[in-house]
Amino acid sequence: MSSHSRKAAKLIRPLVQRLHPYVPGEQPKILGLVKLNTNENPYSPAPKVIEAVKRAADGRLRLYPNPTAELLREKLAKFHGCQPENIIVGNGSDELLAMAVRAFTEPLDGGRGRNGTPGPSKGKVQFFHPSYSLYPVLAATHGAKAHPVALESNFAIPALPKLKSGKQWDFAAALSFITTPNAPSGRAYGKAQLKELCAAQRGVIVLDEAYVDFARENALSLSLAFPHVLTARTFSKAYSLCFLRVGYFVGSRELIAALNKIRDSYNVNGLGQIAAIETLNCLPYYRETFCKIIHSRNHLSTRLSDLGFEVYPSQTNFILVRPPHFPAAVWLEKLRSKKILVRWFNDPILKDWLRITIGTEAECDALIREAERMTND
Amino acid sequence: MSSHSRKAAKLIRPLVQRLHPYVPGEQPKILGLVKLNTNENPYSPAPKVIEAVKRAADGRLRLYPNPTAELLREKLAKFHGCQPENIIVGNGSDELLAMAVRAFTEPLDGGRGRNGTPGPSKGKVQFFHPSYSLYPVLAATHGAKAHPVALESNFAIPALPKLKSGKQWDFAAALSFITTPNAPSGRAYGKAQLKELCAAQRGVIVLDEAYVDFARENALSLSLAFPHVLTARTFSKAYSLCFLRVGYFVGSRELIAALNKIRDSYNVNGLGQIAAIETLNCLPYYRETFCKIIHSRNHLSTRLSDLGFEVYPSQTNFILVRPPHFPAAVWLEKLRSKKILVRWFNDPILKDWLRITIGTEAECDALIREAERMTND
Repeated sequence: MSSHSRKAAKLIRPLVQRLHPYVPGEQPKILGLVKLNTNENPYSPAPKVIEAVKRAADGRLRLYPNPTAELLREKLAKFHGCQPENIIVGNGSDELLAMAVRAFTEPLDGGRGRNGTPGPSKGKVQFFHPSYSLYPVLAATHGAKAHPVALESNFAIPALPKLKSGKQWDFAAALSFITTPNAPSGRAYGKAQLKELCAAQRGVIVLDEAYVDFARENALSLSLAFPHVLTARTFSKAYSLCFLRVGYFVGSRELIAALNKIRDSYNVNGLGQIAAIETLNCLPYYRETFCKIIHSRNHLSTRLSDLGFEVYPSQTNFILVRPPHFPAAVWLEKLRSKKILVRWFNDPILKDWLRITIGTEAECDALIREAERMTND
Repeated sequence: MSSHSRKAAKLIRPLVQRLHPYVPGEQPKILGLVKLNTNENPYSPAPKVIEAVKRAADGRLRLYPNPTAELLREKLAKFHGCQPENIIVGNGSDELLAMAVRAFTEPLDGGRGRNGTPGPSKGKVQFFHPSYSLYPVLAATHGAKAHPVALESNFAIPALPKLKSGKQWDFAAALSFITTPNAPSGRAYGKAQLKELCAAQRGVIVLDEAYVDFARENALSLSLAFPHVLTARTFSKAYSLCFLRVGYFVGSRELIAALNKIRDSYNVNGLGQIAAIETLNCLPYYRETFCKIIHSRNHLSTRLSDLGFEVYPSQTNFILVRPPHFPAAVWLEKLRSKKILVRWFNDPILKDWLRITIGTEAECDALIREAERMTND
C-alpha cells in the first residue's frame, strides 16, 4: 500500500471499512442473453408510457423536477384510497428502505458499528431469513444491528404463538422488514397473518410488497390502519420501470413526514415521475402482462417439475427451484455458458436452489430446452 | 394529537424529530414565470442530448440501469485525465454530499445527535459560512456536528496564516466542504489558495464545484493530487440536466471505493446516464451557453449597479445583489408579484441580499425593467 493509499484509508470510518456491500444481480452488456436473474418484467412499459417519456424529453430537462413528486403522490393517493401525505416517493424503493433504517433505528456503539452483541431493540433491524439480502447490508451501513429470524423450512412465517414463545423475534425491534410475497422463495403471506403480527409488534414494520402484483392478495391497507406499519411498493418489477428508479412507501403521515425530513430534496428524477404517472393511466395493459407472466410461471414450473426440479410454489414473477443431477452453482454456470442468466445465492440455506425470473414465453422455452438437454446428458 | 399520532411519533428517532430539513428553492407550477431562483441554465440541453434521451425511451426502460454508471465513468475519466475508479456518479451531487458525511464522519453522542458541545474532530462537518445551506442539514441528519467558520466580510476565504492562528478552523475536521466558486456570493477562489489549504488539512475536503464552468479556473486536479481531496461536479447547473439528477465526485480510488460501499446499488437512473454521456459529446454547445450567460451576467450587473444595487462580482451563473430603497425581502415579494422569482435567504449575514440566477437575455431584461420601475416609483 502506498503512503497515498494509507493516508486515504485512515480517513474512512472503521464502520465503512468493514462493510460488505450488497451485490446486485449482474446487468450484462452482452446482447442476446436470456436474462432471468433480476426479476424484471419481460414486457415493455405500455406504449403510452414510452410516448409520455419521449414527449417530456425537451427543454424542461434543464429544470429541477418537482421535489416531492406531488402529482405522482396525488395520483397514488387516489389509487390507494389515502392522502398524498400518506405517501413518499423514492429513487427506487431501495432508497426508501435505507431511509427507514436511518429514520427509525439508532446506530449502536456510538455509531462505530461494532455490533457484535445483540444490542437493545432500538438499534435493531429485524427481518426473516431468507429474504431480501439488502436488509442486513442497510443495517450494517447505518451501524445498526441486523437481526435475522429464521423462517420455517417451507419459508412460512412462524405462527404468532410460536414467535411469542420463541426467544428470537423481538416485538420491540425498532424496525422490521417483512418481504411479502417473500423473495427468493416466492411464497406469499396471508393478510390475516400479517395483521396479527402487526397488531402484536411495537416497533416500525415495513411490508416490502415489491412483488405483490403477481400475488393473490396484498396487505397495503394495514399501513393505513396501523400507525407503525409502512408498505413498500415499486414501479420497477411489475411496472417495467427499473431504468427510471421509482418506488414508494404508504403509511401514517407521521412516519412519512419523518422520512421526508431525511430525504434528498430532489430524489426522484423528473422523467421517472412522468413515466410513473402515465403508468397509472395504463393499468389494464400491465394486468395483461401479469396474466401472461403467471401463465408462463405455471408452465415453467410444470415443465421443470417434470424434469426432476423441486419447484417452490410462487406468487411472484420468479420461482425458486432445486435442480437435479448437479449442484445449483454448476447449473448456474452451465446455463450461463448457454447465454441464460439465472440467480444463485451463496447462502447455506439457499445454496442448493436457483432463483429464475419468469421471462417471455420464448425465454421460458429456451430455459426448458437447455434444462432438458442437461438432464438428459 | 390522536393516540395514533402519539404512537407513531414515539417510533421516530429523537434526532430526526429535531431536524429542520433543507428548504429547496421553489419549483412553481404556474407557467409564464421568470424563474431566476434556483440557478438552472436558462438554455435547453443540446439537441443531440434530447434526441439521445428520446431514442433511449423504449423497451429498455424495463431493465435495471448499469449499477455503477460504467460508460459514463469511463467517459468522465477520459475527460478529466484519470481512471474510472477515481469517479463515482450520484443521483445529483446532493446524494454524494450526503454520502460523504456518512462515510467520513462519526455520529456524535452515540448517534443520538445531541450535538450541543463542539465534539471531537472526527464528528465534525466543517464549512465556510455563508455557503451552501445544505451542509449543516446533512450534518444534523447524520448526527454529526455542523461546524461553520465565517468567511471574510467580502466572502473571501481567510488566508492560511489567519486560519492557523485563529481558533475556529479545525485542520483535523473529519470532513470539510468548500464551495468554489462560492454560493450564494458567486465569489471564486484561486487554485493556489485552495492547494495551500488542502496541503494543510488532515481530514477529507470536498471541493464543491457545482458552478465552476462559469468561473475562470477550477481546482479539480487537486483531487487527483491529494489522497484526501474530492471534487464534486454536477450536470444540473451548467449542463441543463437538473431534471435527470446526475452529479459526480472525482478523487482517490480509496475514498471513491468507500463511497461506493454505502451507495444504493442502482442510484443513477438510466436515462440520466445516457443524457450525461451525450452531453460530453456536445461540449462546444454548452461552452456557447456559458459565454451567453457570462455576457448576460455582466450586462445585468452593470444595469443593476446603475440602478443603485450593490452587485457582488460573480464567477457563477448567479449574482448576489443588495437592492436599494426597500429591504431585500420586500423586493422578493414585489418581484414575485410581477411573476419574477429570485432567491432570498433568511440568514443574518444574507438578509439584505438577493441571489439572482442569470436567465436568458429576455429574462434579464424583464428583471431590469421591473427594477427600473420599482426604483423610480
